[in-house]
Amino acid sequence: MLVGIGPGSVDHMTARARAAIAEADVVIGYVTYIKLVADLLDGKEIIRKSMTEELDRAVSALASARAGKKVALISSGDAGVYGMAGPTYEVLFQSGWTPDDPVQVEIVPGASALNSCAALVGAPLTHDFCAISLSDLLTPWPTIARRLDAVAMADFVVALYNPKSGRRTRQIVEAQRLFLRHRRADTPVAIVKSAYRRRENIVFTTLDRMADADIGMLSTVLIGNSNTFVRDGLMVTPRGYANKYDMEEGGATRAGEKAGRSLSTGLLGWLDQLQAEHAAGATIEALAARHRLPADYIAATLAEPWEDEAVPAGEGEA
Amino acid sequence: MLVGIGPGSVDHMTARARAAIAEADVVIGYVTYIKLVADLLDGKEIIRKSMTEELDRAVSALASARAGKKVALISSGDAGVYGMAGPTYEVLFQSGWTPDDPVQVEIVPGASALNSCAALVGAPLTHDFCAISLSDLLTPWPTIARRLDAVAMADFVVALYNPKSGRRTRQIVEAQRLFLRHRRADTPVAIVKSAYRRRENIVFTTLDRMADADIGMLSTVLIGNSNTFVRDGLMVTPRGYANKYDMEEGGATRAGEKAGRSLSTGLLGWLDQLQAEHAAGATIEALAARHRLPADYIAATLAEPWEDEAVPAGEGEA
Repeated sequence: MLVGIGPGSVDHMTARARAAIAEADVVIGYVTYIKLVADLLDGKEIIRKSMTEELDRAVSALASARAGKKVALISSGDAGVYGMAGPTYEVLFQSGWTPDDPVQVEIVPGASALNSCAALVGAPLTHDFCAISLSDLLTPWPTIARRLDAVAMADFVVALYNPKSGRRTRQIVEAQRLFLRHRRADTPVAIVKSAYRRRENIVFTTLDRMADADIGMLSTVLIGNSNTFVRDGLMVTPRGYANKYDMEEGGATRAGEKAGRSLSTGLLGWLDQLQAEHAAGATIEALAARHRLPADYIAATLAEPWEDEAVPAGEGEA
Repeated sequence: MLVGIGPGSVDHMTARARAAIAEADVVIGYVTYIKLVADLLDGKEIIRKSMTEELDRAVSALASARAGKKVALISSGDAGVYGMAGPTYEVLFQSGWTPDDPVQVEIVPGASALNSCAALVGAPLTHDFCAISLSDLLTPWPTIARRLDAVAMADFVVALYNPKSGRRTRQIVEAQRLFLRHRRADTPVAIVKSAYRRRENIVFTTLDRMADADIGMLSTVLIGNSNTFVRDGLMVTPRGYANKYDMEEGGATRAGEKAGRSLSTGLLGWLDQLQAEHAAGATIEALAARHRLPADYIAATLAEPWEDEAVPAGEGEA
């Protein structure tokens, strides 16, 4: 049982996470996570591992399970997000395991650091977001740099995991440099350490000062998108209601927009607009530049035979 | 209290989520989520809202709270991820609310759909990932398209929320088109409907057939990165151990690599390599093309005064 324990507070564990640990004969995990669930561990065999030994933790778990024991392999947050799920399946497959094996696997989902940290700072996620790890222990730097640049350009809210350590101090500087190619210097940034734990600490800063902030191994960095704002100590990314409703004037729908329907600049409206611009003489290249989309995508979209979609009656959607 | 109830199974709610609902006088939510927690609702005032009325839900919550009631506003998954947290803070601020107000706000984090769905299909996330909503009800299509293209190019694992509805049938087709510009046609895709609920359904397919699959409003689509594989009905994204360890030969560290340290192609090693290539005569433009990074970033990095970083003694890291 690969158990995501959430941020590390008993209140924020799921019923299944607690039950899985309670059912286990053996509990394996990085020492900090074992300590976080100490109250659940009486009478169990505890195997504490140190940080770099992810593969060892999975190998230990498999060995204990093959010996007929129930094993809880614990991760902070969610086991599937930079946690033990991937490494464990890699070790299982390497050993010749298949799902028909007597050893059965369950992954117990939990709230990841980005969810827990976000809950403490306001509503920074709200809309499209990414998680990127600045750890280059297993990933080449150019791969990480390309990802940072791509999501900064495409205006995602971004959560940086493993932002900095005693040895890795420059990656956060490079991340700031890449983000500043696309984002304003005053883009809100929140740095959350030890969410829902005793030494919880939250700092708000801006993109141009992110690399100078106090960031460590227990920190998650949240970088806002171009609409994110901080007000009264809360970081909020708008959902986009202002695109459809006049928020100042009692929430009336703007001209040309309709509740429960795509925006006038949603896919179908945009396709109409594109067709019209093209018919009016705009070249593929000009349209690509104007809409900041690849020329081959514009061309393929224009070439698509255009049929009115049958619209079923029924409720709108959020 | 903005409560994320997770995937919609009592087992997968946190203790705090259950406690918050139990403490509430009033419980507000979309009808489907209210039904998911029916067993907790005896004696409470229940306000059921339909799908497009997110702002109304927040306005109702504020009105009840101002009347002195404790209100639980529930979202599936995590309230901060395409949930009620953002809309609620927008409504609060619009009303003149500040954190000093008698009405206090708590966001209770939960596992989002991407975590729950991932737990059921294997370990698809593991590494850098993104969430993108295909709903264009509040977001212009070009914004969504740029995001899809950027993350496909930068090789993220991608979770598509709101992938398709009765009215929005073409967005998933466009998403597939954009992804195929960068990813192999056989990239693994998992479609999970109603995770941990009675009508749970999981389908594996590939990128080139994604748009033809049975996808609805209750589905989350997970698109693998270029290393994701499906084996024995499990979708797994490798963590990258093969970059450092010879997985075939008992896990020995590869030549030039070291456990607990950055890869030879991690930031510092890569910077050395870049300096050497430049000193050997490669132009900025050639380096930019070779490493697929912006030329101005390459130039700025080369211009940075290079000092050996003091490396503190101590443990490595994962």
